[in-house]
Amino acid sequence: MNTAYQPDTRLDLTFERIVDVPKELVWRAWTQPQQLKQWFTPAPWTTIDCEIDLRPGGIFRTVMRSPEGQEFPNVGCYLEVRENEKLVWTNALTPGFRPAPTPASKGEGTVPFFFTASIQLAAQGSGTRYTATVIHADEAGCKKHAEMGFHEGWGKALDQLVALAKKM
Amino acid sequence: MNTAYQPDTRLDLTFERIVDVPKELVWRAWTQPQQLKQWFTPAPWTTIDCEIDLRPGGIFRTVMRSPEGQEFPNVGCYLEVRENEKLVWTNALTPGFRPAPTPASKGEGTVPFFFTASIQLAAQGSGTRYTATVIHADEAGCKKHAEMGFHEGWGKALDQLVALAKKM
Repeated sequence: MNTAYQPDTRLDLTFERIVDVPKELVWRAWTQPQQLKQWFTPAPWTTIDCEIDLRPGGIFRTVMRSPEGQEFPNVGCYLEVRENEKLVWTNALTPGFRPAPTPASKGEGTVPFFFTASIQLAAQGSGTRYTATVIHADEAGCKKHAEMGFHEGWGKALDQLVALAKKM
Repeated sequence: MNTAYQPDTRLDLTFERIVDVPKELVWRAWTQPQQLKQWFTPAPWTTIDCEIDLRPGGIFRTVMRSPEGQEFPNVGCYLEVRENEKLVWTNALTPGFRPAPTPASKGEGTVPFFFTASIQLAAQGSGTRYTATVIHADEAGCKKHAEMGFHEGWGKALDQLVALAKKM
């Protein structure tokens, strides 16, 4: 998955927007737990815990909480880390690159499919071209992710990220 | 998974041996398709095809053939590439870090569990300390891999690798 990657519309979800904050602040929002917790989940959901070990194989763990108070832990690991440019992680591997249990065996409340997400940042004037590409194993996983509200969710979260970055 | 990694005996299989060929030749045997095909599968099995794109996210594909002529394709991708020192790949991701289809849906003849393999090479006199660590999602996958003859298979393959390296 590099800059020239052409998404496969059957298997991939993409999200692109120009935002008026510099990419260094977007990077901080994505890579510092105390920042990420403030924007990662569209309100009224919250992210109540976050652990980041920013290197390939390092942990990326979040715990989301629903408005009703139910908690949803997610564990994955980073695959590629290029400061202020590109961040890739997956929930198909856990820290140390260990394969994750199959989604069906992970229990209720966990994401029911594997995906790999790539966030790419490029300077655009004084702002940032923000491109997210989320790739799946099969059409069923991709469709399920779209139906869970991928585009609306990532859009609202990015709004929250931008608002936070403007206060940094 | 770094040098200090302590294997989990419930989830991991390990294989270590000192071999009397330099680590640069072991690296070549692992990373050049025309070399790998000559040693990778314990005879009378053969490896009839191999594709290697030696970078994180790059393809590692092999096709094994049984003595009866049945072919078994395997596709994975590299996660860490440190020349002459460490090579990590997984079958839980396909090229470009895309999650692999779950083993149950991949069809007959494919490896029925996910694993990540790490090969570490260290100079030992004029030879090499060769350490393989293969990690799994759960005990069932680890046990299955052991029962498929992991230790005997990796031992025979390494014998073939050493014999090849001595002719390089």
